[in-house]
Amino acid sequence: MAGAGDAPGAAPRLLGSRSATTRMPTVSDVASSAGVSRQTVSNVLNSPAVVRPGTRERVERAIAELGYRPHASARRLRTRKSSTIGIRLDPVQNGISGAVLDRFLHAVTEQADARGYRILLYTAAGPDDEIAQFERLLDGADVDGFILTSTFFDDPRTEWLIAAGAEFVTFGRPWGLDDRGDPRHRWVDVDGRHGVAAATSELLGRGASRVAFLGWPPESGAGNDRRRGWRETLDAAGALSADRIDALSLSVEDSVSLGADAIRALLASGVEIDAVVCASDTLALGATTVLGGSVPVIGYDDTPVAAALGLSSVEQPLDEVAAAALQLLLDGDAGAGDESLHRLLRPRPVWR
Amino acid sequence: MAGAGDAPGAAPRLLGSRSATTRMPTVSDVASSAGVSRQTVSNVLNSPAVVRPGTRERVERAIAELGYRPHASARRLRTRKSSTIGIRLDPVQNGISGAVLDRFLHAVTEQADARGYRILLYTAAGPDDEIAQFERLLDGADVDGFILTSTFFDDPRTEWLIAAGAEFVTFGRPWGLDDRGDPRHRWVDVDGRHGVAAATSELLGRGASRVAFLGWPPESGAGNDRRRGWRETLDAAGALSADRIDALSLSVEDSVSLGADAIRALLASGVEIDAVVCASDTLALGATTVLGGSVPVIGYDDTPVAAALGLSSVEQPLDEVAAAALQLLLDGDAGAGDESLHRLLRPRPVWR
Repeated sequence: MAGAGDAPGAAPRLLGSRSATTRMPTVSDVASSAGVSRQTVSNVLNSPAVVRPGTRERVERAIAELGYRPHASARRLRTRKSSTIGIRLDPVQNGISGAVLDRFLHAVTEQADARGYRILLYTAAGPDDEIAQFERLLDGADVDGFILTSTFFDDPRTEWLIAAGAEFVTFGRPWGLDDRGDPRHRWVDVDGRHGVAAATSELLGRGASRVAFLGWPPESGAGNDRRRGWRETLDAAGALSADRIDALSLSVEDSVSLGADAIRALLASGVEIDAVVCASDTLALGATTVLGGSVPVIGYDDTPVAAALGLSSVEQPLDEVAAAALQLLLDGDAGAGDESLHRLLRPRPVWR
Repeated sequence: MAGAGDAPGAAPRLLGSRSATTRMPTVSDVASSAGVSRQTVSNVLNSPAVVRPGTRERVERAIAELGYRPHASARRLRTRKSSTIGIRLDPVQNGISGAVLDRFLHAVTEQADARGYRILLYTAAGPDDEIAQFERLLDGADVDGFILTSTFFDDPRTEWLIAAGAEFVTFGRPWGLDDRGDPRHRWVDVDGRHGVAAATSELLGRGASRVAFLGWPPESGAGNDRRRGWRETLDAAGALSADRIDALSLSVEDSVSLGADAIRALLASGVEIDAVVCASDTLALGATTVLGGSVPVIGYDDTPVAAALGLSSVEQPLDEVAAAALQLLLDGDAGAGDESLHRLLRPRPVWR
């Protein structure tokens, strides 16, 4: 830290120098006041039985008089508990959708604090780098466990944590063969399929039949899950043939201009639409720039951008996600059966 | 943490149980392998001189064989250094402008990581609660110092930290009598007055003369600073009388609808305007909903909402703010003279 202050020859500090009279007492102060060695003070704190009663009383009196309080570090060392949870924070990337993980971080920090836990942020350049961070943080007993975000198929991070016997929960499914019946780790996620199905059903209920889906390429587990919710709803409604439903299914990278281009191309090809359901608010904004208010458009994530623009959007229940993640991580076998291993929470369409 | 695993009688854990063969070795493992007490292992690690050479070698061999690594907690206890910086995270409040502090947090976390520091998040219900958090975090040597945000006049948090001799820097001025010549603590801030003056000048240069300012009530130090940049620029231009400039100065709380109302009321009163400079993107969005594209409007903060909507905005250089905050906090007397106590960085209008 800036200007250690006590070091002889250090540049004079204008501000915030901790004077000898106001600084917090140390083990050395206690030792010197009690006329014993630092090791003896340490023994009184950690192994009082090995210290002679007279010496112990003298040290305890000095501790009380000086107001010395042993470090949380010492407590951590004895208990191997830090009451701290590690979460990775990435550089700002997507200006619109990135806000979702920030809002999750706010919710987790607030709820963890209410449980006496704190959040330690770290960064990582990729999965291997993140694994190296896990190792450092666990080795130092800096954290008791992790909340991972942005899981992906065959995620090496979760494999490593399972092998290391570390405690963790993910916000995001493993996206494996049977995530619910035989999950490979504790997870909490939002049921995007259900959220998109609910939005599609409501549009059908209002008289729309040709509901397009503007989503991501098939590499995204979350994107495929959301598209499935739309597809299943249209299939079940039975108003359109499979071919016509196929023609309403659009896939682009997450960008306002690419979303707008896809809608423009669809209209230019002569396909008529009554509504558009999107995998993100970014894509919904792109669709809206082309369609104006001519047909309903609904996005996903209910970001501040959607709220500010009055766009409809499917809202993720981030407070509930945070509560469930902390419960799975901290409360052990909370909930019955599958509930102790995963939680799939339902999002809710917000119409504007 | 969930399911401690080793405890007898604990419910069986399906996942992530740390087995005896894969878990990290502890002081007890070393002690048992070397045939000594835990205290002796602790002495070898912390006060090797008090241990007989033969015993010491045996313990050191066990440490090497088992791959035991002493805790960072132990290191912290010896050095009183945590390589951790505390930052308060508030519940999500303003959907549009709140993103600025989140983006600052991303920048600080990334740059702190590059310097070997981590960020510990805490919450606080108010200044007194935050001071109690300072005390707990410093007492536990959990953090080496703090980066405070959202400073205000006569801020009791900074008074407490100065009195405690704690290391800290603020993102935000003390807003006192002479923040630059005689600052009460280290601070970094963005020169809102300059940013708004630059935006106003550019609008005048493009032929506008009746430039309105849509800002906040006078309780806000940052708001007054921004308004001053607009006022000084119009005064210096000399095209309008002081009375006419007064009529162009609007004050409302930070809300889209209140911003829109204020512009509507101004137009209804018969005042004509060529452009509007706003204290926030929230207010700029309100002005835009009334004015459409009829006259230029510029906001402040360059939030994702402004970028998504194509609104002009004054951008805060958050990467530079983060770098300066860490430099003031960690590098001691970096920079010459005043540079070691404060940094006032220039924002830049982004026209769209």
